[in-house]
Amino acid sequence: MKKSLKELKELAKICRADILKMTTVAKSGHPGGSMSSIDLYLSVFNVANIDPENPYDPKRDRVVISHGHTSPGVYSALARLGFFNPDDVLAGFRHPGSIFEGHITRGIPGVEWTTGNLGQGLSAGVGMALASKITGADYRVFVLHSDGESPKGQIAEARRTAVKEKLSNLTVLVDYNDIQISGRARDVLFVDIAKEYEADGWKVLEVDGHDFEQILNAIEEAKNYKLGPTVIIAKTIIGKGVSFMENRHEYHGAPLKEDALEKALKELGVENDIEKYKEMRSKLPLIREKLEFEDNTVVAEPETPIVYTKKDKIDNRGAFGNAIADLAKANKGKVPVVAVDCDLKPSVKLEKFEKVAPENYVQIGIQEHNAATIAGAMSVCGVVPFFVDFGVFGLDETFNQQRLNDINHTNLKTAVTHCGIDIGEDGKTHHEINYVGIVRSFFDTKLIVPADPNQTDKAVRYAASTPGNVVIAMGRSKIPVILNEAGEPFFGEGYTFEYGKMDILRKGEKVTILTHGSVAHKAVNVADKLKEEGIKITVINVSAPLEFDAAKIKEYIENTEVIIYEDHNKYNGLFVEFSKSVVENGIKPAGIEVLGVDNYSPSGSNALLFKIFKLDEESLYEIVKEKISK
Amino acid sequence: MKKSLKELKELAKICRADILKMTTVAKSGHPGGSMSSIDLYLSVFNVANIDPENPYDPKRDRVVISHGHTSPGVYSALARLGFFNPDDVLAGFRHPGSIFEGHITRGIPGVEWTTGNLGQGLSAGVGMALASKITGADYRVFVLHSDGESPKGQIAEARRTAVKEKLSNLTVLVDYNDIQISGRARDVLFVDIAKEYEADGWKVLEVDGHDFEQILNAIEEAKNYKLGPTVIIAKTIIGKGVSFMENRHEYHGAPLKEDALEKALKELGVENDIEKYKEMRSKLPLIREKLEFEDNTVVAEPETPIVYTKKDKIDNRGAFGNAIADLAKANKGKVPVVAVDCDLKPSVKLEKFEKVAPENYVQIGIQEHNAATIAGAMSVCGVVPFFVDFGVFGLDETFNQQRLNDINHTNLKTAVTHCGIDIGEDGKTHHEINYVGIVRSFFDTKLIVPADPNQTDKAVRYAASTPGNVVIAMGRSKIPVILNEAGEPFFGEGYTFEYGKMDILRKGEKVTILTHGSVAHKAVNVADKLKEEGIKITVINVSAPLEFDAAKIKEYIENTEVIIYEDHNKYNGLFVEFSKSVVENGIKPAGIEVLGVDNYSPSGSNALLFKIFKLDEESLYEIVKEKISK
Repeated sequence: MKKSLKELKELAKICRADILKMTTVAKSGHPGGSMSSIDLYLSVFNVANIDPENPYDPKRDRVVISHGHTSPGVYSALARLGFFNPDDVLAGFRHPGSIFEGHITRGIPGVEWTTGNLGQGLSAGVGMALASKITGADYRVFVLHSDGESPKGQIAEARRTAVKEKLSNLTVLVDYNDIQISGRARDVLFVDIAKEYEADGWKVLEVDGHDFEQILNAIEEAKNYKLGPTVIIAKTIIGKGVSFMENRHEYHGAPLKEDALEKALKELGVENDIEKYKEMRSKLPLIREKLEFEDNTVVAEPETPIVYTKKDKIDNRGAFGNAIADLAKANKGKVPVVAVDCDLKPSVKLEKFEKVAPENYVQIGIQEHNAATIAGAMSVCGVVPFFVDFGVFGLDETFNQQRLNDINHTNLKTAVTHCGIDIGEDGKTHHEINYVGIVRSFFDTKLIVPADPNQTDKAVRYAASTPGNVVIAMGRSKIPVILNEAGEPFFGEGYTFEYGKMDILRKGEKVTILTHGSVAHKAVNVADKLKEEGIKITVINVSAPLEFDAAKIKEYIENTEVIIYEDHNKYNGLFVEFSKSVVENGIKPAGIEVLGVDNYSPSGSNALLFKIFKLDEESLYEIVKEKISK
Repeated sequence: MKKSLKELKELAKICRADILKMTTVAKSGHPGGSMSSIDLYLSVFNVANIDPENPYDPKRDRVVISHGHTSPGVYSALARLGFFNPDDVLAGFRHPGSIFEGHITRGIPGVEWTTGNLGQGLSAGVGMALASKITGADYRVFVLHSDGESPKGQIAEARRTAVKEKLSNLTVLVDYNDIQISGRARDVLFVDIAKEYEADGWKVLEVDGHDFEQILNAIEEAKNYKLGPTVIIAKTIIGKGVSFMENRHEYHGAPLKEDALEKALKELGVENDIEKYKEMRSKLPLIREKLEFEDNTVVAEPETPIVYTKKDKIDNRGAFGNAIADLAKANKGKVPVVAVDCDLKPSVKLEKFEKVAPENYVQIGIQEHNAATIAGAMSVCGVVPFFVDFGVFGLDETFNQQRLNDINHTNLKTAVTHCGIDIGEDGKTHHEINYVGIVRSFFDTKLIVPADPNQTDKAVRYAASTPGNVVIAMGRSKIPVILNEAGEPFFGEGYTFEYGKMDILRKGEKVTILTHGSVAHKAVNVADKLKEEGIKITVINVSAPLEFDAAKIKEYIENTEVIIYEDHNKYNGLFVEFSKSVVENGIKPAGIEVLGVDNYSPSGSNALLFKIFKLDEESLYEIVKEKISK
């Protein structure tokens, strides 16, 4: 049941009171911007096709609020429109025993994306709108952002993709209250928001953001515009509705004291009942249960692996390219497997994919922040997206976007190529030598570093068919298929990928090499060479370095000379996981040697670079011989 | 001696041949864009006030090339204008035995900023132009960027700051060749570059980028425009100068084979002498010496520390605010101490600073990527900048900008507040619980996590007076001054800050707590409480977690129950450094317990959050008691 104009006006008053009450009860929060945005929130949630009784319907409209600190406004609007009980918000806001956190959180009915770090919301909305084009689910997307965050470059990036993709199902509303923490927005940093949107090709409407009729008419006009996205710039007043709060930046992030609240509620004509909520709050548990919700994520069928034989010499990124093309083709008509690219198609091996599934290929251009968030948001809207990029862009440049994806519990597959100094000549700005260290920062993302093309193929299929975030890190150069001692592909027919399982590539004694990724085959070569000399050593591939568990391979570590051998920052990779695990398990190796990258590398062929960092086979051979002769 | 038009045209031909020769000799590199940019490079380096004989003069003009992959173009232009010997480039390009890396590198005469990851160059140029306003050094700044990277949001951010700060000493030249890796730029992602610059308030000129007269006239016009920055959009042709390379995106990143080179050089009318360079290349050492250069960095005088007494209760960020204001005031007229802010002035305590040194206060607004690069670039131009921000913005959001600062060996001081779950109610998007893990990724950046306001004051003075990058990580809440066993401030009068030194706050036996930052005082409280019960334990403050050295405090670790106690992601903080160090040193504690943050935290007061993660004093007390009774 949609509300009438009169009802909306009445609700707006109640919501303003809610905003003030919950921030005063919590003694924390952002009332000012909530009160400037609240009429927009009520308008959008009233118009949007979301059923409070069935808020996770995959066909619902999506509303993304980018300025997540206006949570009091969002929560009050949703509560008063029937999405949940207002009392729970008023008592629980910003308490660990409640789901109503300081910044809005995905999973709360009506909330599609956890925000708080400004400037990412528009990309999330673009991702959701793009997904609807691919799945055919006919929903609209609304994004609300503030003027204070408008300078964030990621918003400019998202604007361009929205126009390129002709996203007429996307409507943006900007809360233009001209106030931010440090004062007037135009003084802090002037942005001509209308002109910038226009320059990027958007239809621009301007309204009074406290006039429901104007807002609703503009939303309707945007809906009827079919050539592309529309932005509605809404002129608003911070603190709107309470005389002494209006246009005062002091109320951006500070709640009212109880006496000021009393005055404000009188002005609004709403009863002051905060004692009730203070009482309720005092009885909340220390910490709530996990927020459970239907998350609309899908997974693909893994289909039949491609097996590379010992005659094949292919790079892991090539095996990735084959696998994702195969997955897209085989899952057609069932689950869309999508690739999100940043102008690196030939290098990241997406040409085959684009041929078999052009409708699922998304070219974002050189806008990695935007791409990472778009891909993350798509992953919760019925498709299985792979964000494909060089390591330095897909992880380092987009660290915080990936962190927000992680916080959002997305279903994103990030395939990064060009990891390690293996990439050679492009030099240190392009050497991603921190893929283990970066993913270690996240709590909800798996990391796989496959050792050869066969393991890559299986890892890609595992990622596509398993819910949750997975990063697959690959090098650049062609590497041989790793063979078992019988001379057959180790990761061939009989092999099943299991996340966290370590692969005993060679068994020996006295010396154990722990390795992963594009140098693993070199360790095998050294072991095989030594075997010819009658010396047997152990080589273990740790394809999931963050799951390293010393207890599981204790027999190969305790009282053994251990060599960590990785194309990675030596202070921040497998050595870290190894050390933590042996300390926790009280295991003591006989000795430890770490071979890795100990500083920024110069440019050069990877053969020369491996030599410089003692990651070449000859150096490894010498080091093992030395350990043996100890 | 500036070159004539005729000489420039002649040089352009030679440089184009150089570009082709060096990429063919290296079998790697980017000839296409180098050939579209080369006429711009020759024009700018010819006009710029840089003396090849004295290329590090602090008063020189600065040229920043944002699309660093066009290194063959940059190197050939500089070499042919007398900055270094062309032979060294032609033979050494992309070889580890040479300084001429795949992407241009700061320190090579004429190269001001290491680039390669696109979109950061304009911010660097803005930083350099801003620094000249503060130091009064009267130089111009030229920034060149490509059309392919124009979508990067950071460029939009930098544009706005340039206009806000009226940087009429800044001229930008855009190489608009309309080609990038995946094809025509307008197809990959259309950006109306002229319109966007106009929307942001720039003066826009357009020229034929292969017509020296037009280019030089436009540069002159820009120089005479005093109201703000100017952009010159130069229409160019990729591969320009060799018929079969023109307008072909295949030559973006692929060198010519030797037979094609022969043809191309014939067209250009330049002798093919690559055998000479191949011969020279074969004799290069495996790796060159470190690139040495005069880096124009300055440091401030530390001045007299402020000492807080046991009566004071102040937050570390407040102590930071006092220290930086004091440093700015005391160094006035000598070295400018600068603060770069992103609309967080009251929260990061810069109000006092702005009062005492308004001319050194830089407000970037909510544009953190831009701010991080601006601050980094300023730090190599005669000022001591502090980039001041919340932890999640100053480290997570700007990870790659900070990485590029690290690669550039800048002199940046990053002061991040609001670290840890200590910040409480704002919730997980705002909890920076990875400050140790992130800085561990860098090779050239120090990290200090001070334990109380006194140590903070000293750390800030240390950072300002020491060359190089330093990150200081602080919490949000007020904490007591830590006292020694005699009841006097531990970090008071007699204390000198020494980077990497661990502070033995309390001495005991059987149990050792290793801690840092805003929970350190809690560990001291627990130790003091236990002392009253007749139990003495050790508490060690590790203010530089990345320098943790178990060997130095072996007596407190070996056969001791060790507790790591930190307001940090428990898998990625001090526990990592501890584990690596005990493994490397073969030290074995009797037991290990890690208290830290093991998942994203909900919102809540920090008292409740500390309780949830067992970081409160009561939990620590219980855990210690349990260890003691073992």
